[in-house]
Amino acid sequence: MSKQDPLILLTNDDGIHSKGLLALYQSLKEVARIAVVAPFAEQSAVGHAITISDPLRVTELSFNDSDAMYAVHGTPADCVKLAVRALLKEKPDAVLSGINIGSNTAINILYSGTVSAATEGTILGIPSAAISLASFSFNDFSVAAQIGKKIAGALLEKSLPPDTILNINVPPVHREDITGVCITRQGVSRFKELYDRRIDPHGHTYYWLTGEMRELDEHDPLTDTMALKNNAISITPIKIQLTDEPFIDIVQSWNISL
Amino acid sequence: MSKQDPLILLTNDDGIHSKGLLALYQSLKEVARIAVVAPFAEQSAVGHAITISDPLRVTELSFNDSDAMYAVHGTPADCVKLAVRALLKEKPDAVLSGINIGSNTAINILYSGTVSAATEGTILGIPSAAISLASFSFNDFSVAAQIGKKIAGALLEKSLPPDTILNINVPPVHREDITGVCITRQGVSRFKELYDRRIDPHGHTYYWLTGEMRELDEHDPLTDTMALKNNAISITPIKIQLTDEPFIDIVQSWNISL
Repeated sequence: MSKQDPLILLTNDDGIHSKGLLALYQSLKEVARIAVVAPFAEQSAVGHAITISDPLRVTELSFNDSDAMYAVHGTPADCVKLAVRALLKEKPDAVLSGINIGSNTAINILYSGTVSAATEGTILGIPSAAISLASFSFNDFSVAAQIGKKIAGALLEKSLPPDTILNINVPPVHREDITGVCITRQGVSRFKELYDRRIDPHGHTYYWLTGEMRELDEHDPLTDTMALKNNAISITPIKIQLTDEPFIDIVQSWNISL
Repeated sequence: MSKQDPLILLTNDDGIHSKGLLALYQSLKEVARIAVVAPFAEQSAVGHAITISDPLRVTELSFNDSDAMYAVHGTPADCVKLAVRALLKEKPDAVLSGINIGSNTAINILYSGTVSAATEGTILGIPSAAISLASFSFNDFSVAAQIGKKIAGALLEKSLPPDTILNINVPPVHREDITGVCITRQGVSRFKELYDRRIDPHGHTYYWLTGEMRELDEHDPLTDTMALKNNAISITPIKIQLTDEPFIDIVQSWNISL
């Protein structure tokens, strides 16, 4: 790779030592220079948290001679902000976040640190995507790494709207069982949370969050969740403009005043 | 208040001892029973983080005889989830988050712990709103508390779509200088971040995040940011369905395959 090749910022929320990040690195380095700036430790479900009340610390690691690699003691969004604004000598041409271990579909998109890193890239004006493998145990990252490379190519060649992020989910099956690539919408789902209430050895109460997701739109074949169920790769364009435009007129009709 | 009166869950991200929360409590208790479940410590800019890898601890505090009050050692979203799923004996009829000290407009909505608490209420099927006072120093919470009561009334009487949250911002002026109530959209803005690089007494580098927000849509009079500039109260309906629907066809046309 030469200085003229595109620069991709690679990050994640599972931490810089994740196998998913390494797999995506190995795939992406065939098409671009890579700067890795990722959390020092796992940061799952941190949403779009950023660190403002504490100082951020950074450990520089060497991967090889040509690529930059930093572990940030912060969140995924911190990693992208700090990389672009302080650590890297040039602005990346794309941000890839992943490969996350576990899916980021439906309501989980709101909690996802993986997606928040890509969102931060978009906020900073860089074409960005998040890539997740929908399993905590499937060890074959090759399909996700391959589609990651394709997505990186699209980010570098095509044009994304300024507030749009690509969120990719890959089913946990081998390549021969992948049924295709679907462009989807965010599914509608809710968690049925259970807090497991326990007493510690000192007599104090604490709670563990557990629970399972329930889909509420199983009739809709074009959601991220349904694509995965059909063993298809899901690509969902999501955006950071959150206004519920059609509802503006209704709130207006309520005539709320002081 | 009797058992038949509505129950409002009150939370925030500034912490349970915030003056903003107290002001909203005093205003809301005129119209409803209140359960306060708020973070033990300040949780600004945590986004929609939830705690899944650590146990959650809760301190029960007594406010008065009739109302429940819990301090959660977690994030604003944790507070709402834990309140509804474990701490409260009945499901709240509305969730109010605030009064936040500082605005939550434009891009800040994505980082806001205050908004994430209201978002979690919506996710749990409860009409929810976030209320922020756009100043770190203005000490008169009366306008924000008053509009908070009106918003609570609307949440209890009107019907919100299942994925919509009301995000309210109040300008830091006294009542006589408020120019009105505007139903707005989320403004488009970006931070110009600066990381202040310092060396600690032990010779190690650390970074403080600083920076200022720049509006990118000053031509649009109907944004949250512009409403505040005009000394109007801003009410923005935002939603948790993030799909960029118009862009689906374009990504489709890219024909991405493995």
